[in-house]
Amino acid sequence: MIIIGENINATNKKVAEAIEQRDKAFFNDLAKAQAEAGADFIDVNAGSGCGTPQENRRAMEWLVETVQQATDRPLTIDSDDTGTIEAALGKYRGEKLLINSVTAETSRLETIGQLAARRGAWLVALAMDAEGIPATVEKRLDACRIIMEYLTTLGMKPEQIWFDPLVLPIAVDANQGQVTLQTIVQIKDRYPEAKTVMGLSNISYGLPNRKLLNRSFLLMAAAAGLDSAILNPLDAKMMSVVRVADMLIGWDTGCRGYLRAHRKGAIID
Amino acid sequence: MIIIGENINATNKKVAEAIEQRDKAFFNDLAKAQAEAGADFIDVNAGSGCGTPQENRRAMEWLVETVQQATDRPLTIDSDDTGTIEAALGKYRGEKLLINSVTAETSRLETIGQLAARRGAWLVALAMDAEGIPATVEKRLDACRIIMEYLTTLGMKPEQIWFDPLVLPIAVDANQGQVTLQTIVQIKDRYPEAKTVMGLSNISYGLPNRKLLNRSFLLMAAAAGLDSAILNPLDAKMMSVVRVADMLIGWDTGCRGYLRAHRKGAIID
Repeated sequence: MIIIGENINATNKKVAEAIEQRDKAFFNDLAKAQAEAGADFIDVNAGSGCGTPQENRRAMEWLVETVQQATDRPLTIDSDDTGTIEAALGKYRGEKLLINSVTAETSRLETIGQLAARRGAWLVALAMDAEGIPATVEKRLDACRIIMEYLTTLGMKPEQIWFDPLVLPIAVDANQGQVTLQTIVQIKDRYPEAKTVMGLSNISYGLPNRKLLNRSFLLMAAAAGLDSAILNPLDAKMMSVVRVADMLIGWDTGCRGYLRAHRKGAIID
Repeated sequence: MIIIGENINATNKKVAEAIEQRDKAFFNDLAKAQAEAGADFIDVNAGSGCGTPQENRRAMEWLVETVQQATDRPLTIDSDDTGTIEAALGKYRGEKLLINSVTAETSRLETIGQLAARRGAWLVALAMDAEGIPATVEKRLDACRIIMEYLTTLGMKPEQIWFDPLVLPIAVDANQGQVTLQTIVQIKDRYPEAKTVMGLSNISYGLPNRKLLNRSFLLMAAAAGLDSAILNPLDAKMMSVVRVADMLIGWDTGCRGYLRAHRKGAIID
Protein backbone atom coordinates (compact mmCIF):
# COMPACT_ATOMS: atom_id res chain seq x y z
CA MET A 1 0.00 0.00 0.00
CA ILE A 2 1.31 3.43 -0.94
CA ILE A 3 0.74 5.61 2.11
CA ILE A 4 -0.14 9.28 1.81
CA GLY A 5 0.26 10.94 5.20
CA GLU A 6 -2.81 13.10 5.76
CA ASN A 7 -1.78 15.01 8.88
CA ILE A 8 -0.74 18.35 7.39
CA ASN A 9 -4.24 19.53 6.65
CA ALA A 10 -5.72 22.82 7.86
CA THR A 11 -9.07 21.19 8.65
CA ASN A 12 -7.19 20.16 11.80
CA LYS A 13 -7.34 23.12 14.19
CA LYS A 14 -3.74 22.77 15.48
CA VAL A 15 -2.47 22.67 11.92
CA ALA A 16 -4.50 25.77 11.01
CA GLU A 17 -3.05 27.65 14.00
CA ALA A 18 0.49 26.58 13.17
CA ILE A 19 0.02 27.84 9.60
CA GLU A 20 -1.36 31.13 10.96
CA GLN A 21 1.73 31.45 13.19
CA ARG A 22 4.13 30.23 10.46
CA ASP A 23 5.42 27.68 12.98
CA LYS A 24 8.25 26.00 11.08
CA ALA A 25 9.22 23.61 13.88
CA PHE A 26 5.68 22.24 14.07
CA PHE A 27 5.64 21.25 10.40
CA ASN A 28 9.24 20.05 10.45
CA ASP A 29 8.30 17.62 13.21
CA LEU A 30 4.99 16.57 11.67
CA ALA A 31 6.53 15.91 8.25
CA LYS A 32 9.47 13.97 9.69
CA ALA A 33 7.24 11.92 12.01
CA GLN A 34 4.98 10.86 9.15
CA ALA A 35 7.94 9.95 6.93
CA GLU A 36 9.49 7.92 9.73
CA ALA A 37 6.18 6.14 10.38
CA GLY A 38 6.11 4.98 6.78
CA ALA A 39 4.39 7.69 4.72
CA ASP A 40 5.46 7.51 1.06
CA PHE A 41 3.93 10.91 0.29
CA ILE A 42 3.22 13.86 2.58
CA ASP A 43 -0.08 15.55 1.81
CA VAL A 44 -0.01 19.34 2.17
CA ASN A 45 -3.30 21.20 2.44
CA ALA A 46 -3.23 24.77 3.78
CA GLY A 47 -7.02 25.04 3.72
CA SER A 48 -9.09 27.86 2.37
CA GLY A 49 -8.79 29.56 5.75
CA CYS A 50 -10.56 32.80 6.53
CA GLY A 51 -8.19 34.95 4.52
CA THR A 52 -8.36 36.34 0.99
CA PRO A 53 -7.50 33.97 -1.88
CA GLN A 54 -4.11 35.72 -2.05
CA GLU A 55 -3.44 35.10 1.65
CA ASN A 56 -4.40 31.44 1.29
CA ARG A 57 -2.05 31.01 -1.65
CA ARG A 58 0.80 32.66 0.29
CA ALA A 59 0.07 30.28 3.18
CA MET A 60 0.25 27.27 0.83
CA GLU A 61 3.52 28.51 -0.71
CA TRP A 62 5.05 28.90 2.74
CA LEU A 63 3.80 25.45 3.77
CA VAL A 64 5.22 23.72 0.69
CA GLU A 65 8.60 25.40 1.19
CA THR A 66 8.61 24.46 4.86
CA VAL A 67 7.62 20.82 4.41
CA GLN A 68 10.02 20.13 1.55
CA GLN A 69 12.86 21.37 3.73
CA ALA A 70 11.89 18.84 6.39
CA THR A 71 11.63 15.67 4.28
CA ASP A 72 12.71 14.21 0.98
CA ARG A 73 9.42 12.35 0.60
CA PRO A 74 7.41 13.62 -2.36
CA LEU A 75 4.50 15.91 -1.53
CA THR A 76 0.83 15.69 -2.38
CA ILE A 77 -0.32 19.18 -3.32
CA ASP A 78 -3.88 19.25 -2.06
CA SER A 79 -6.31 22.13 -2.51
CA ASP A 80 -9.85 22.91 -3.66
CA ASP A 81 -8.56 26.07 -5.31
CA THR A 82 -6.79 25.77 -8.65
CA GLY A 83 -4.89 29.03 -8.07
CA THR A 84 -3.53 27.60 -4.80
CA ILE A 85 -2.36 24.43 -6.55
CA GLU A 86 -0.65 26.53 -9.20
CA ALA A 87 1.03 28.68 -6.54
CA ALA A 88 2.20 25.55 -4.66
CA LEU A 89 3.68 24.03 -7.82
CA GLY A 90 5.70 27.23 -8.28
CA LYS A 91 7.45 26.56 -4.97
CA TYR A 92 7.79 22.79 -5.14
CA ARG A 93 11.27 21.59 -6.13
CA GLY A 94 10.72 17.82 -5.93
CA GLU A 95 10.82 15.62 -8.99
CA LYS A 96 8.02 13.30 -7.87
CA LEU A 97 4.69 14.96 -7.24
CA LEU A 98 1.06 14.00 -6.67
CA ILE A 99 -1.65 16.59 -7.24
CA ASN A 100 -4.93 16.19 -5.33
CA SER A 101 -7.37 16.41 -7.20
CA VAL A 102 -9.59 16.64 -10.25
CA THR A 103 -13.15 15.45 -10.92
CA ALA A 104 -15.04 15.06 -14.20
CA GLU A 105 -16.18 18.68 -13.83
CA THR A 106 -14.82 20.35 -16.98
CA SER A 107 -13.18 23.60 -15.92
CA ARG A 108 -11.21 22.15 -13.00
CA LEU A 109 -10.33 19.03 -14.98
CA GLU A 110 -8.89 21.20 -17.76
CA THR A 111 -6.97 23.61 -15.54
CA ILE A 112 -5.47 21.08 -13.14
CA GLY A 113 -5.12 18.45 -15.86
CA GLN A 114 -2.96 20.78 -17.92
CA LEU A 115 -0.83 21.67 -14.88
CA ALA A 116 -0.30 17.97 -14.11
CA ALA A 117 0.46 17.07 -17.73
CA ARG A 118 3.01 19.88 -18.07
CA ARG A 119 4.70 18.89 -14.82
CA GLY A 120 4.62 15.11 -15.45
CA ALA A 121 2.84 14.74 -12.10
CA TRP A 122 0.63 11.98 -10.77
CA LEU A 123 -2.93 13.15 -10.36
CA VAL A 124 -5.71 12.05 -7.99
CA ALA A 125 -8.97 11.81 -9.94
CA LEU A 126 -12.17 11.63 -7.91
CA ALA A 127 -14.88 9.39 -9.40
CA MET A 128 -17.47 12.17 -9.41
CA ASP A 129 -18.78 14.95 -11.59
CA ALA A 130 -20.17 18.46 -11.02
CA GLU A 131 -23.34 16.94 -9.52
CA GLY A 132 -21.47 15.46 -6.54
CA ILE A 133 -20.65 11.89 -5.52
CA PRO A 134 -22.76 9.41 -7.53
CA ALA A 135 -24.60 6.74 -5.52
CA THR A 136 -23.89 3.98 -8.07
CA VAL A 137 -20.83 2.16 -9.41
CA GLU A 138 -21.88 2.87 -13.02
CA LYS A 139 -22.01 6.64 -12.57
CA ARG A 140 -18.65 6.67 -10.73
CA LEU A 141 -17.17 4.74 -13.66
CA ASP A 142 -18.72 7.25 -16.09
CA ALA A 143 -16.83 10.01 -14.30
CA CYS A 144 -13.60 7.95 -14.47
CA ARG A 145 -14.09 7.45 -18.21
CA ILE A 146 -14.53 11.19 -18.84
CA ILE A 147 -11.43 11.96 -16.80
CA MET A 148 -9.30 9.24 -18.43
CA GLU A 149 -10.35 10.30 -21.94
CA TYR A 150 -9.52 13.95 -21.34
CA LEU A 151 -6.22 13.42 -19.55
CA THR A 152 -4.89 10.98 -22.13
CA THR A 153 -5.63 13.52 -24.90
CA LEU A 154 -3.25 15.81 -22.97
CA GLY A 155 -0.59 13.11 -23.30
CA MET A 156 -0.84 11.83 -19.72
CA LYS A 157 -0.25 8.12 -19.29
CA PRO A 158 -2.84 5.94 -17.50
CA GLU A 159 -0.28 5.20 -14.78
CA GLN A 160 -0.19 8.91 -13.89
CA ILE A 161 -3.86 8.79 -12.92
CA TRP A 162 -4.83 7.68 -9.41
CA PHE A 163 -8.57 7.13 -9.24
CA ASP A 164 -10.34 7.71 -5.94
CA PRO A 165 -13.51 5.53 -5.94
CA LEU A 166 -14.90 7.70 -3.10
CA VAL A 167 -16.61 6.54 0.06
CA LEU A 168 -20.01 7.50 1.46
CA PRO A 169 -21.08 6.72 5.05
CA ILE A 170 -22.33 3.18 5.62
CA ALA A 171 -24.66 4.61 8.28
CA VAL A 172 -26.56 6.46 5.55
CA ASP A 173 -26.74 3.60 3.03
CA ALA A 174 -25.80 -0.01 3.84
CA ASN A 175 -24.82 -0.57 0.22
CA GLN A 176 -22.11 2.08 0.06
CA GLY A 177 -19.27 -0.18 1.18
CA GLN A 178 -19.99 -2.48 -1.75
CA VAL A 179 -20.33 0.48 -4.12
CA THR A 180 -16.82 1.62 -3.23
CA LEU A 181 -15.33 -1.88 -3.33
CA GLN A 182 -16.93 -2.71 -6.68
CA THR A 183 -15.81 0.65 -8.10
CA ILE A 184 -12.22 -0.28 -7.18
CA VAL A 185 -12.59 -3.73 -8.80
CA GLN A 186 -14.01 -2.20 -11.98
CA ILE A 187 -11.42 0.58 -12.22
CA LYS A 188 -8.60 -1.98 -11.90
CA ASP A 189 -10.30 -4.09 -14.56
CA ARG A 190 -10.80 -1.26 -17.06
CA TYR A 191 -7.61 0.67 -16.41
CA PRO A 192 -5.07 -1.86 -15.10
CA GLU A 193 -2.24 0.67 -15.35
CA ALA A 194 -4.03 3.36 -13.36
CA LYS A 195 -3.74 3.38 -9.59
CA THR A 196 -6.51 3.54 -7.00
CA VAL A 197 -6.34 5.71 -3.89
CA MET A 198 -8.73 6.73 -1.16
CA GLY A 199 -9.30 8.25 2.23
CA LEU A 200 -11.10 5.94 4.62
CA SER A 201 -12.81 7.94 7.30
CA ASN A 202 -16.09 8.75 5.50
CA ILE A 203 -17.15 5.10 5.73
CA SER A 204 -17.53 5.28 9.51
CA TYR A 205 -19.17 8.70 9.77
CA GLY A 206 -21.79 8.77 12.54
CA LEU A 207 -20.86 5.36 14.00
CA PRO A 208 -19.00 4.28 17.15
CA ASN A 209 -15.50 2.70 16.99
CA ARG A 210 -14.59 4.68 13.89
CA LYS A 211 -10.92 3.65 13.92
CA LEU A 212 -11.79 -0.06 13.92
CA LEU A 213 -14.22 0.52 11.03
CA ASN A 214 -11.69 2.51 9.02
CA ARG A 215 -8.99 -0.14 9.48
CA SER A 216 -11.43 -2.88 8.56
CA PHE A 217 -12.47 -1.07 5.41
CA LEU A 218 -8.83 -0.61 4.44
CA LEU A 219 -8.36 -4.39 4.51
CA MET A 220 -11.48 -4.92 2.40
CA ALA A 221 -10.38 -2.27 -0.08
CA ALA A 222 -6.91 -3.85 -0.27
CA ALA A 223 -8.57 -7.14 -1.20
CA ALA A 224 -10.53 -5.32 -3.92
CA GLY A 225 -7.33 -3.85 -5.39
CA LEU A 226 -6.66 -0.55 -3.61
CA ASP A 227 -3.10 0.65 -4.26
CA SER A 228 -2.85 3.66 -1.99
CA ALA A 229 -4.53 5.14 1.06
CA ILE A 230 -4.66 8.64 2.51
CA LEU A 231 -4.43 8.13 6.26
CA ASN A 232 -2.77 9.07 9.52
CA PRO A 233 0.54 7.17 9.56
CA LEU A 234 0.98 8.04 13.26
CA ASP A 235 -1.96 5.72 14.07
CA ALA A 236 0.02 2.61 15.04
CA LYS A 237 -2.91 0.20 14.73
CA MET A 238 -3.73 1.55 11.27
CA MET A 239 -0.12 1.15 10.16
CA SER A 240 -0.06 -2.39 11.58
CA VAL A 241 -3.01 -3.22 9.37
CA VAL A 242 -1.28 -1.64 6.36
CA ARG A 243 1.67 -4.02 6.90
CA VAL A 244 -0.74 -6.94 7.31
CA ALA A 245 -2.63 -5.96 4.12
CA ASP A 246 0.62 -5.73 2.14
CA MET A 247 1.59 -9.21 3.29
CA LEU A 248 -1.79 -10.88 2.77
CA ILE A 249 -2.20 -9.30 -0.67
CA GLY A 250 1.16 -10.66 -1.81
CA TRP A 251 3.18 -7.45 -1.88
CA ASP A 252 5.60 -8.52 0.87
CA THR A 253 7.72 -11.41 -0.39
CA GLY A 254 9.00 -13.63 2.39
CA CYS A 255 6.92 -11.56 4.84
CA ARG A 256 10.06 -9.47 5.27
CA GLY A 257 8.34 -6.10 5.76
CA TYR A 258 5.89 -7.58 8.23
CA LEU A 259 8.53 -9.42 10.25
CA ARG A 260 10.78 -6.34 10.33
CA ALA A 261 7.86 -4.27 11.64
CA HIS A 262 7.08 -7.00 14.17
CA ARG A 263 10.67 -7.01 15.49
CA LYS A 264 10.48 -3.24 15.94
CA GLY A 265 7.32 -3.73 18.00
CA ALA A 266 5.33 -1.90 15.33
CA ILE A 267 2.63 -4.54 14.83
CA ILE A 268 -0.10 -3.71 17.34
CA ASP A 269 -2.98 -6.13 17.76
CA MET B 1 -21.34 -13.96 7.79
CA ILE B 2 -22.65 -17.40 8.74
CA ILE B 3 -20.60 -18.46 11.75
CA ILE B 4 -19.63 -22.07 12.35
CA GLY B 5 -18.33 -22.45 15.90
CA GLU B 6 -15.17 -24.54 15.71
CA ASN B 7 -14.54 -25.19 19.40
CA ILE B 8 -15.84 -28.74 19.76
CA ASN B 9 -12.95 -30.39 17.97
CA ALA B 10 -10.80 -33.17 19.40
CA THR B 11 -7.59 -31.66 18.02
CA ASN B 12 -7.97 -29.48 21.13
CA LYS B 13 -6.53 -31.47 24.03
CA LYS B 14 -9.17 -30.43 26.60
CA VAL B 15 -11.91 -31.43 24.18
CA ALA B 16 -10.24 -34.79 23.56
CA GLU B 17 -10.04 -35.43 27.31
CA ALA B 18 -13.66 -34.44 27.85
CA ILE B 19 -14.71 -36.87 25.11
CA GLU B 20 -12.60 -39.60 26.72
CA GLN B 21 -14.33 -38.92 30.04
CA ARG B 22 -17.79 -38.50 28.44
CA ASP B 23 -18.03 -35.16 30.27
CA LYS B 24 -21.54 -33.98 29.38
CA ALA B 25 -21.37 -30.73 31.34
CA PHE B 26 -18.24 -29.65 29.47
CA PHE B 27 -19.92 -29.97 26.06
CA ASN B 28 -23.20 -28.54 27.30
CA ASP B 29 -21.35 -25.39 28.37
CA LEU B 30 -19.19 -25.19 25.25
CA ALA B 31 -22.14 -25.60 22.88
CA LYS B 32 -24.28 -23.06 24.76
CA ALA B 33 -21.44 -20.54 24.99
CA GLN B 34 -20.80 -20.68 21.25
CA ALA B 35 -24.50 -20.35 20.42
CA GLU B 36 -24.81 -17.37 22.77
CA ALA B 37 -21.72 -15.73 21.22
CA GLY B 38 -23.37 -15.86 17.80
CA ALA B 39 -22.52 -19.24 16.23
CA ASP B 40 -25.11 -20.22 13.62
CA PHE B 41 -23.79 -23.79 13.45
CA ILE B 42 -21.89 -25.84 16.02
CA ASP B 43 -19.14 -27.95 14.46
CA VAL B 44 -18.73 -31.39 16.07
CA ASN B 45 -15.51 -33.30 15.45
CA ALA B 46 -14.67 -36.17 17.79
CA GLY B 47 -11.30 -36.78 16.17
CA SER B 48 -9.79 -40.03 15.05
CA GLY B 49 -8.45 -40.47 18.59
CA CYS B 50 -6.21 -43.38 19.49
CA GLY B 51 -9.04 -45.89 19.60
CA THR B 52 -10.34 -48.37 17.06
CA PRO B 53 -12.60 -47.05 14.27
CA GLN B 54 -15.54 -48.49 16.23
CA GLU B 55 -14.54 -46.64 19.38
CA ASN B 56 -14.15 -43.39 17.44
CA ARG B 57 -17.61 -43.79 15.90
CA ARG B 58 -19.13 -44.45 19.34
CA ALA B 59 -17.41 -41.30 20.62
CA MET B 60 -18.89 -39.26 17.74
CA GLU B 61 -22.36 -40.69 18.33
CA TRP B 62 -22.16 -39.77 22.00
CA LEU B 63 -20.88 -36.29 21.15
CA VAL B 64 -23.66 -35.59 18.64
CA GLU B 65 -26.31 -36.73 21.13
CA THR B 66 -24.76 -34.62 23.86
CA VAL B 67 -24.39 -31.44 21.83
CA GLN B 68 -27.86 -31.55 20.30
CA GLN B 69 -29.32 -31.77 23.79
CA ALA B 70 -27.49 -28.56 24.71
CA THR B 71 -28.46 -26.31 21.80
CA ASP B 72 -31.03 -25.98 19.06
CA ARG B 73 -28.44 -24.62 16.64
CA PRO B 74 -27.85 -26.97 13.72
CA LEU B 75 -24.68 -29.06 13.87
CA THR B 76 -21.82 -29.44 11.45
CA ILE B 77 -20.92 -33.11 11.33
CA ASP B 78 -17.17 -33.04 10.80
CA SER B 79 -14.96 -36.08 10.32
CA ASP B 80 -12.25 -37.47 8.06
CA ASP B 81 -13.87 -40.88 8.31
CA THR B 82 -16.96 -41.59 6.22
CA GLY B 83 -18.11 -44.30 8.66
CA THR B 84 -17.98 -41.75 11.48
CA ILE B 85 -20.08 -39.28 9.49
CA GLU B 86 -22.61 -42.01 8.77
CA ALA B 87 -22.73 -42.99 12.44
CA ALA B 88 -23.20 -39.35 13.47
CA LEU B 89 -26.06 -38.87 11.01
CA GLY B 90 -27.78 -41.85 12.60
CA LYS B 91 -27.91 -39.99 15.90
CA TYR B 92 -28.63 -36.47 14.64
CA ARG B 93 -32.28 -35.41 14.99
CA GLY B 94 -32.02 -31.84 13.65
CA GLU B 95 -33.66 -30.81 10.41
CA LYS B 96 -30.88 -28.48 9.30
CA LEU B 97 -27.49 -30.08 8.91
CA LEU B 98 -24.08 -29.26 7.43
CA ILE B 99 -21.69 -32.11 6.61
CA ASN B 100 -17.95 -31.35 6.60
CA SER B 101 -16.61 -32.36 4.04
CA VAL B 102 -15.96 -33.80 0.59
CA THR B 103 -13.18 -33.18 -1.95
CA ALA B 104 -12.99 -34.07 -5.65
CA GLU B 105 -11.51 -37.44 -4.62
CA THR B 106 -13.98 -39.95 -6.07
CA SER B 107 -14.67 -42.52 -3.36
CA ARG B 108 -15.26 -40.01 -0.55
CA LEU B 109 -17.20 -37.68 -2.86
CA GLU B 110 -19.53 -40.54 -3.79
CA THR B 111 -20.06 -41.90 -0.28
CA ILE B 112 -20.54 -38.60 1.53
CA GLY B 113 -22.28 -37.02 -1.46
CA GLN B 114 -24.92 -39.73 -1.42
CA LEU B 115 -25.40 -39.38 2.35
CA ALA B 116 -25.84 -35.60 1.97
CA ALA B 117 -28.20 -35.92 -0.98
CA ARG B 118 -30.38 -38.49 0.81
CA ARG B 119 -30.54 -36.32 3.93
CA GLY B 120 -31.06 -32.97 2.10
CA ALA B 121 -28.02 -31.63 3.97
CA TRP B 122 -25.70 -28.78 3.15
CA LEU B 123 -22.24 -30.04 2.30
CA VAL B 124 -18.81 -28.42 2.65
CA ALA B 125 -16.78 -29.12 -0.51
CA LEU B 126 -13.04 -28.53 -0.30
CA ALA B 127 -11.48 -27.14 -3.49
CA MET B 128 -8.95 -29.96 -3.72
CA ASP B 129 -8.51 -33.41 -5.18
CA ALA B 130 -6.74 -36.60 -4.16
CA GLU B 131 -3.35 -34.92 -4.85
CA GLY B 132 -3.83 -32.41 -2.03
CA ILE B 133 -4.39 -28.64 -2.01
CA PRO B 134 -3.62 -27.17 -5.45
CA ALA B 135 -1.33 -24.12 -5.51
CA THR B 136 -3.32 -22.34 -8.24
CA VAL B 137 -6.80 -20.84 -8.59
CA GLU B 138 -7.41 -22.81 -11.81
CA LYS B 139 -6.79 -26.19 -10.23
CA ARG B 140 -8.94 -25.34 -7.20
CA LEU B 141 -11.74 -24.40 -9.61
CA ASP B 142 -11.21 -27.70 -11.48
CA ALA B 143 -11.88 -29.52 -8.21
CA CYS B 144 -15.00 -27.39 -7.61
CA ARG B 145 -16.28 -28.22 -11.11
CA ILE B 146 -15.84 -31.98 -10.57
CA ILE B 147 -17.64 -31.77 -7.22
CA MET B 148 -20.49 -29.60 -8.54
CA GLU B 149 -21.02 -31.84 -11.57
CA TYR B 150 -21.19 -35.00 -9.48
CA LEU B 151 -23.38 -33.65 -6.69
CA THR B 152 -25.93 -32.12 -9.06
CA THR B 153 -26.27 -35.50 -10.84
CA LEU B 154 -27.34 -36.80 -7.40
CA GLY B 155 -30.09 -34.17 -7.38
CA MET B 156 -28.38 -31.78 -4.97
CA LYS B 157 -29.03 -28.10 -5.60
CA PRO B 158 -26.11 -25.66 -5.99
CA GLU B 159 -27.23 -23.83 -2.83
CA GLN B 160 -26.62 -27.01 -0.82
CA ILE B 161 -22.92 -26.87 -1.71
CA TRP B 162 -20.60 -24.74 0.40
CA PHE B 163 -17.22 -24.46 -1.31
CA ASP B 164 -14.14 -24.03 0.83
CA PRO B 165 -11.48 -22.24 -1.31
CA LEU B 166 -8.79 -23.43 1.16
CA VAL B 167 -5.96 -21.42 2.62
CA LEU B 168 -2.23 -22.13 2.60
CA PRO B 169 0.25 -20.29 4.82
CA ILE B 170 1.33 -16.87 3.56
CA ALA B 171 4.70 -17.50 5.22
CA VAL B 172 5.34 -20.31 2.73
CA ASP B 173 4.14 -18.49 -0.41
CA ALA B 174 3.36 -14.75 -0.54
CA ASN B 175 0.82 -15.37 -3.30
CA GLN B 176 -1.44 -17.68 -1.32
CA GLY B 177 -3.65 -14.93 0.11
CA GLN B 178 -4.51 -13.84 -3.43
CA VAL B 179 -5.01 -17.45 -4.55
CA THR B 180 -7.65 -17.93 -1.86
CA LEU B 181 -9.32 -14.55 -2.47
CA GLN B 182 -9.45 -15.05 -6.23
CA THR B 183 -10.80 -18.58 -5.77
CA ILE B 184 -13.68 -17.11 -3.73
CA VAL B 185 -14.36 -14.45 -6.39
CA GLN B 186 -14.38 -17.07 -9.16
CA ILE B 187 -16.57 -19.55 -7.26
CA LYS B 188 -19.15 -16.81 -6.60
CA ASP B 189 -19.00 -15.85 -10.27
CA ARG B 190 -19.43 -19.40 -11.62
CA TYR B 191 -21.84 -20.74 -8.99
CA PRO B 192 -23.71 -17.72 -7.63
CA GLU B 193 -26.15 -19.94 -5.71
CA ALA B 194 -23.44 -21.94 -3.96
CA LYS B 195 -22.01 -20.67 -0.69
CA THR B 196 -18.36 -20.17 0.26
CA VAL B 197 -16.96 -21.14 3.65
CA MET B 198 -13.52 -21.37 5.19
CA GLY B 199 -11.37 -21.70 8.24
CA LEU B 200 -8.89 -18.87 8.66
CA SER B 201 -6.03 -19.97 10.78
CA ASN B 202 -3.84 -21.62 8.11
CA ILE B 203 -3.08 -18.21 6.60
CA SER B 204 -1.05 -17.13 9.63
CA TYR B 205 0.81 -20.40 10.27
CA GLY B 206 4.37 -19.72 11.42
CA LEU B 207 3.91 -15.96 11.89
CA PRO B 208 3.56 -13.74 14.97
CA ASN B 209 0.25 -12.03 15.87
CA ARG B 210 -1.78 -14.85 14.38
CA LYS B 211 -5.13 -13.58 15.68
CA LEU B 212 -4.65 -10.18 14.04
CA LEU B 213 -3.72 -11.88 10.76
CA ASN B 214 -6.71 -14.23 10.89
CA ARG B 215 -9.13 -11.37 11.58
CA SER B 216 -7.58 -9.30 8.82
CA PHE B 217 -7.91 -12.14 6.34
CA LEU B 218 -11.56 -12.61 7.31
CA LEU B 219 -12.25 -8.99 6.30
CA MET B 220 -10.45 -9.46 2.99
CA ALA B 221 -12.33 -12.71 2.31
CA ALA B 222 -15.63 -10.99 3.17
CA ALA B 223 -14.84 -8.35 0.55
CA ALA B 224 -14.14 -11.14 -1.97
CA GLY B 225 -17.53 -12.76 -1.26
CA LEU B 226 -17.07 -15.20 1.62
CA ASP B 227 -20.43 -16.26 3.07
CA SER B 228 -19.39 -18.30 6.08
CA ALA B 229 -16.41 -18.79 8.37
CA ILE B 230 -15.35 -21.60 10.69
CA LEU B 231 -13.93 -19.83 13.73
CA ASN B 232 -13.87 -19.49 17.49
CA PRO B 233 -16.96 -17.43 18.36
CA LEU B 234 -15.65 -16.96 21.91
CA ASP B 235 -12.86 -14.74 20.50
CA ALA B 236 -14.46 -11.34 21.13
CA LYS B 237 -12.18 -9.43 18.75
CA MET B 238 -12.90 -11.92 15.98
CA MET B 239 -16.64 -11.63 16.53
CA SER B 240 -16.34 -7.81 16.53
CA VAL B 241 -14.76 -8.02 13.12
CA VAL B 242 -17.51 -10.38 11.93
CA ARG B 243 -20.10 -7.72 12.88
CA VAL B 244 -18.01 -5.04 11.16
CA ALA B 245 -17.67 -7.19 8.02
CA ASP B 246 -21.42 -7.80 7.89
CA MET B 247 -22.06 -4.07 8.09
CA LEU B 248 -19.42 -2.96 5.60
CA ILE B 249 -20.47 -5.63 3.08
CA GLY B 250 -24.07 -4.46 3.17
CA TRP B 251 -25.65 -7.33 5.11
CA ASP B 252 -26.67 -5.20 8.12
CA THR B 253 -29.35 -2.74 7.03
CA GLY B 254 -29.45 0.37 9.16
CA CYS B 255 -26.32 -0.90 10.96
CA ARG B 256 -28.75 -2.46 13.43
CA GLY B 257 -26.73 -5.60 14.22
CA TYR B 258 -23.56 -3.58 14.66
CA LEU B 259 -25.17 -0.96 16.90
CA ARG B 260 -26.89 -3.63 19.01
CA ALA B 261 -23.52 -5.39 19.48
CA HIS B 262 -21.94 -2.03 20.33
CA ARG B 263 -24.55 -1.28 23.00
CA LYS B 264 -23.87 -4.69 24.57
CA GLY B 265 -20.17 -3.79 24.71
CA ALA B 266 -19.43 -6.56 22.23
CA ILE B 267 -17.46 -4.48 19.72
CA ILE B 268 -13.85 -4.64 20.87
CA ASP B 269 -11.30 -2.45 19.13
